Amino acid sequence: MLVHKPEQVKVTFQPVGTRTVVRAGATVLEAGREAGLILVANCGGNGLCGRCRVTILDGRAETPTRAEIEVLKKEELVAGQRLACRTTLYTDTSIHVPRITMGNQQRLQLDGRHAVFTVEACVQGHVIEVTKPAQKKTVSDFDRVTHSLEKAHGTVGSWCASPSVLRAVSRWMREPGQRFKLVTRANEVIGLVDGDKQLLGVAVDIGCTKIAAYLMDIETGKQLAACGIPNPQISFGEDLISRLVYARKGLHQAQELAHCVQAGINQLIRTLLQSLPESASAGPEQMADLCVVGNTAMVHLFLGMPTEGLLVAPFLAATTSSIDIRAVEAGIDLPNDVYVHVLPAIGAFVGADHVAMILANGLHQGNHVSLGVDIGTNTEIVLSRPDQGLLLTASCPAGPAFEGGHIQHGMRAAPGAIEKITLKEGCLAVQTVGGQPPLGLCGSGIIDAVALLWQMGAINFRGHLQSGTAGVRDGDSGKQFLLVEAENTGHGRDIVISQQDISEVQLAKAAVAASIKTLLKISKTDPDEIQELVLAGAFGSYLGVGSSINIGLLPDLPNATYQQVGNAAGIGAKMALVSAASREQAGRVARLATRVELKQQEGFNRELALATRFPVRQQEKDRHA
Amino acid sequence: MLVHKPEQVKVTFQPVGTRTVVRAGATVLEAGREAGLILVANCGGNGLCGRCRVTILDGRAETPTRAEIEVLKKEELVAGQRLACRTTLYTDTSIHVPRITMGNQQRLQLDGRHAVFTVEACVQGHVIEVTKPAQKKTVSDFDRVTHSLEKAHGTVGSWCASPSVLRAVSRWMREPGQRFKLVTRANEVIGLVDGDKQLLGVAVDIGCTKIAAYLMDIETGKQLAACGIPNPQISFGEDLISRLVYARKGLHQAQELAHCVQAGINQLIRTLLQSLPESASAGPEQMADLCVVGNTAMVHLFLGMPTEGLLVAPFLAATTSSIDIRAVEAGIDLPNDVYVHVLPAIGAFVGADHVAMILANGLHQGNHVSLGVDIGTNTEIVLSRPDQGLLLTASCPAGPAFEGGHIQHGMRAAPGAIEKITLKEGCLAVQTVGGQPPLGLCGSGIIDAVALLWQMGAINFRGHLQSGTAGVRDGDSGKQFLLVEAENTGHGRDIVISQQDISEVQLAKAAVAASIKTLLKISKTDPDEIQELVLAGAFGSYLGVGSSINIGLLPDLPNATYQQVGNAAGIGAKMALVSAASREQAGRVARLATRVELKQQEGFNRELALATRFPVRQQEKDRHA
Repeated sequence: MLVHKPEQVKVTFQPVGTRTVVRAGATVLEAGREAGLILVANCGGNGLCGRCRVTILDGRAETPTRAEIEVLKKEELVAGQRLACRTTLYTDTSIHVPRITMGNQQRLQLDGRHAVFTVEACVQGHVIEVTKPAQKKTVSDFDRVTHSLEKAHGTVGSWCASPSVLRAVSRWMREPGQRFKLVTRANEVIGLVDGDKQLLGVAVDIGCTKIAAYLMDIETGKQLAACGIPNPQISFGEDLISRLVYARKGLHQAQELAHCVQAGINQLIRTLLQSLPESASAGPEQMADLCVVGNTAMVHLFLGMPTEGLLVAPFLAATTSSIDIRAVEAGIDLPNDVYVHVLPAIGAFVGADHVAMILANGLHQGNHVSLGVDIGTNTEIVLSRPDQGLLLTASCPAGPAFEGGHIQHGMRAAPGAIEKITLKEGCLAVQTVGGQPPLGLCGSGIIDAVALLWQMGAINFRGHLQSGTAGVRDGDSGKQFLLVEAENTGHGRDIVISQQDISEVQLAKAAVAASIKTLLKISKTDPDEIQELVLAGAFGSYLGVGSSINIGLLPDLPNATYQQVGNAAGIGAKMALVSAASREQAGRVARLATRVELKQQEGFNRELALATRFPVRQQEKDRHA
Repeated sequence: MLVHKPEQVKVTFQPVGTRTVVRAGATVLEAGREAGLILVANCGGNGLCGRCRVTILDGRAETPTRAEIEVLKKEELVAGQRLACRTTLYTDTSIHVPRITMGNQQRLQLDGRHAVFTVEACVQGHVIEVTKPAQKKTVSDFDRVTHSLEKAHGTVGSWCASPSVLRAVSRWMREPGQRFKLVTRANEVIGLVDGDKQLLGVAVDIGCTKIAAYLMDIETGKQLAACGIPNPQISFGEDLISRLVYARKGLHQAQELAHCVQAGINQLIRTLLQSLPESASAGPEQMADLCVVGNTAMVHLFLGMPTEGLLVAPFLAATTSSIDIRAVEAGIDLPNDVYVHVLPAIGAFVGADHVAMILANGLHQGNHVSLGVDIGTNTEIVLSRPDQGLLLTASCPAGPAFEGGHIQHGMRAAPGAIEKITLKEGCLAVQTVGGQPPLGLCGSGIIDAVALLWQMGAINFRGHLQSGTAGVRDGDSGKQFLLVEAENTGHGRDIVISQQDISEVQLAKAAVAASIKTLLKISKTDPDEIQELVLAGAFGSYLGVGSSINIGLLPDLPNATYQQVGNAAGIGAKMALVSAASREQAGRVARLATRVELKQQEGFNRELALATRFPVRQQEKDRHA
C-alpha cells in the first residue's frame, strides 16, 4: 500500500451512539471495529454477501461502488443504504446500523487474558441438503452446490475447488435426502464433512523448547483440548543457533529439521483428537484450518525456508509476510484441502509469536500507552502509543541466564527447581517446583535470589558480593552465597549463587532494562505515561514482579498495572484461527510495527553499561518517599 | 453476480474518436476492449498497477474508489485522472486516453484464423537486479524483492510465495550484481528464472483421439513449437464411452486414466522443449503456465474427476467451472509453482474445447449473426446473436459415421483413405490421403460419395439406392454402389457404399441438420440473417462444404461465408495462455452461453425424421432459380 498522511475523520454510529476516530479512507466496517461494534460481514468484507447494510445519516461518503450496485436492490440504493465493507469515509459521518447488521457480539474467554474479538473464522461451514437433480436442467454437481450456497447464505461469487474436492462433492450430490457441510475458505471450497459435524481447527505455537497446540471448534470459538510436546528439534541442539547452523549445512539437513517439527505437529493433532471425550469424538476430516505462530527462526525451520540470513549480520529473514499454504505442502497430513496460515512477523528477531502476543493483548488498539515484554534468551519488547500511531518493537539477546543457562546451579523449571525465594523473619524460604527437595534454581528463582541479595545488602550496587555479610563465603572460583545447605538439598550438595552467576544476571537484566529505556527515549515517553506493562511467555508468567523491579530488570512504572499473561502467543494464534478479523488485525500489527535496531541507537551501549548496576534499594526509596 | 437489466451507455474515446455502446456499470477498461482499444493494464485490471490512467472529459462517472485514491497521486486525482479498470460508467461519457495508456496493440497471427487479442499473459516476468542489502535496514529477502517489483513496475499489493519459491528467492538475493526474472501470477510469486530467459507456456488440447500441445513464448505470444501424440487413453477404449465406463469401476481406474493423459502431457512438454533449435534452447524451469482445453469428459478424466454423471441421464458434469490448480496437483512435472488453467465448459457435452472455439473465432463478439459447428461423433453447435445477447449452444450425438465408423469400408483419415470424390466428365475421380491406392473411405470421402450418389440420381430423396442406375448392384446384405473396382484398390477388393452406409450417413446428417434448424427456430433466426458459418475441428476442416450442403448436412445460407478454421480449440487455448483478457473472455463465453437440450424441444423429433431426407437437388434448384 502506498503511504500518504492519513487525515482523521470522526464517525458516529446510531442508534448506539458510539463514536470513534479513524483515518480518512477507512471503510465503515473498519470504523465499526475501531468503535468496538461488530457488524455482520459473512463474506469477510468483500462486498459479496450484502449483509453489512448501513445507512449514511449525514456526512459525505463516496457514491456507491459497483459491488454495492450489484448487491443492493434499487430501492435500497435510493433509500441511501450502503455496504459497510465497501463504503469509505472521507469526512465526519453519522451512520445508522440496523439491528440486523449488528453481530451477536459473541465474546469469548480463551484460556488467559485477551482482547475482545468476534468469532467468525476465515473457514466457514455451510450445511447443504441434497435434492434430486432436475431432469430438465443439466447443471453440474458443483454448480448445484454453489447455487444452494448462494441461496441459503445470500453469498454470490465465483467458487473454485480442487479435483479431489470436486470428486467428494459429486459423490454426495448423487445422494438425494442426505445433508453435508461444505467447508469454504474465501472463494474456495476446501472440503466437506458429514452431516452437521462441527468444524475444527488447530492453533500451534512453535517454541524453541516446546510446541503447544490447541484444538478449537472454529464455528463457536470454543477450545476443546490443549496439548504440548517438547520440540523434537531439540535432538539437533537445545538452542536456536545450533539448529540454524545445522540447517545451513544443506537442503537435506533443513528438510530434516522441517520434517521433525511437522511430524511433531501431526502427532499433536492426533493426540488432541484422541483426548476428546467419546461423547464429543471427532475425526481428522473435521479439521478445517490451522494457524501457526513461532519466532521467525522457528517458522523458517518449520517450512524449510532458508535460514542462512538469520545467522549473519545484517540478519535477514527470507520473509516476514504471513504465509498461506496447503497443509499438505507444509507436511501436515489432513484430509480435505486444509490450509496452514502462519502469522506475519515483524523482523528476523521479532517473530509471529510476538505479533500474536500484541494481538492477544490488544496492545495496538485502544488508547492507552503500554509496554509488552516477552522475556527469554531472546527478549522481545513492544512499546505501543496508539495516540501517536506508534508501535515500536525491538529484540535484545538477554542470554540464557533467565532460563537457568550459564548459572552454576541453574536448571529448567523441572521438579526440584527453586522457583521462588522469600525472606521470612530474616531467613530465606525457598519454594520448589513440585515441592520437592531443591536441586537448583530456575529463572524466577535466580531473579528472586539476586533481588534478595541486593535487598539484604549482600551485594553492592555493582553486584559485588560483600565479604563479611551472612552467607557470603569464598568458593572454588571466587566469592559465593550459600543459598541452601547440603543437608536440605535433594542431591546432598550445597546450592550456591556465585559471583559469576550474579554477573550473568546483571548482563541479562541490563539488556532488557536498557532496551526498554531506549524505546521510551526514542518515543519520548515518560515512565509516568505507561499505563500497562504486559509480561508474556512462560518465564514472564512465573517471574516475581517485585524482585524484577528491585534489581532493575523491569522499570518501576508509577501509573502502570503489571500483567502476567501466560502464553499470549498461543492465545493470539487461537484468535487468528477462529476470527477472520483478528487474522486481519495481525497483518495490521505487522505492517504498523517499526523495528528498532537497538545497537544502532546512539547511547545504547552506555545505557547497557549503566543498567548492569542495581537501582536504589526499595527501603531507601521508601525512606525518601 | 446478481442480474438486473443492464441499461446501455455510449462511450467515446479521445483523441482516437472511437465510440462504443456498453452496459451501464461497465468499467472504462471493458468499454475500451469493446471499442477495440487495448489499454495497458499490467495488473490485469485489479486496480493495483496504476497504468490504465484516463481522464473523464464529460459525463458522470463514480467518484474515485479507494484503490484509485491509493494508487493515484493527489494532484492526479484533482486533475480528474482515473484508473480505467476501476471507473464504472452509468451515463454517456467521453474519455481521454493518454498515449502512455494505449497498449502497443501487438496483434498476433496464430496458426489459423482467430479473433484479435492482446498478448499479456496472466503470468508475468519481472527482471530483478540484485543489490547488496543495506546493513542498517533489515528487510527480509522477500520484501526486498517485492519492493523492487513495486519500484520498477509501479505495482503495489500484498505478495505471497510458497516456501520453495522463498528458498529460491533468498538464494538469489544473496548474490549482489546478479539478475534474475521473477515469475508472478496475480499476487503470487510462482518462481524465478535465470537472467533474461524468456517465459514459456504450453497450450494443450486433449482430444479423444489426439493430444495436441503448443509451446508458446508467453511474453511475446509467439508459438515456438507444436506437437501431437495419440491420446494414450486409447488403450482403454477408442471411444469416450468405454473410457468413462472403465473410470466408473473405481478410483484406481479413474486415476489410471488420469495418469495416462498426464504422462502424455509430460512427454509432450519434453518433446516440445527438445524440438527447439540449439540457438533457442530452453529448459523446463522456463515453463511458467499451462492452459488446457478438451471436451468435458476429457477434462474430467485428465483431472481424475468423477465421470459417473456423464454416463446416465440427466448427464451431469462434476463441474463446468474453469479450474486453476498447481501443475504438480494435476500430475504435471515442472519446477516452480506453475499452475494449470483449464478453460470453463458450458455443459456435460459442450466442453472447454467448444468455449475455446467460440473464443478463437470471436463468435461472441462483434455484431454479426453466426453459426459455429464442430462436427464429430458428438457434434457441438453454437448460434451467436450478439444483437440479442444470445449464445445458444447444443450438442447432438451424430454417431461415428463422420469418422468412418459403422461404415462398411469406412476408415480413419490414414494413408489410402478416400478423402475427396469428384465427378469428372461423368466419371467418379477419387483422391486419397497420401495419394496411395484406395483402401476405404474416411468421413469427408463418405459425405462426397453420398452427395454424388444423390446428385447422380443413384439414390432417391429417402436415400434408397435405385436399381438400374449405373454402379448400383445387389450385394451380400442388400443393394450397394460400386465406388472403386478391386483392380484399382490397394487391397484388391471392391470398395462399395452399402444401403446401410447411406442410412448411417442419413442419421448422422439429420442429427446435425435438425439441431441447427432447432437453434434457428428457438432464436427466431432466419437463415438469411446468418452471416458466417464456422466449421471447426479436424473433420470440419476437410469436409467438402458443397457436398455437405447438397446432402443437407449443412444449411444453405444465402448470405453467409463458410469458414473452415482447423483446430480452433487449440487456437483458443493458445489465446487464453498468452492473453489474460482472452482467458477472462472465455469465462464470459461460458457464463453467457445457454445450453439448449434439443430432445426437450417441441418438434425436434419431427425435424430429425424430416432431416434424414435429401433436399432438393442443386440442379433442380438452379432450374427453379
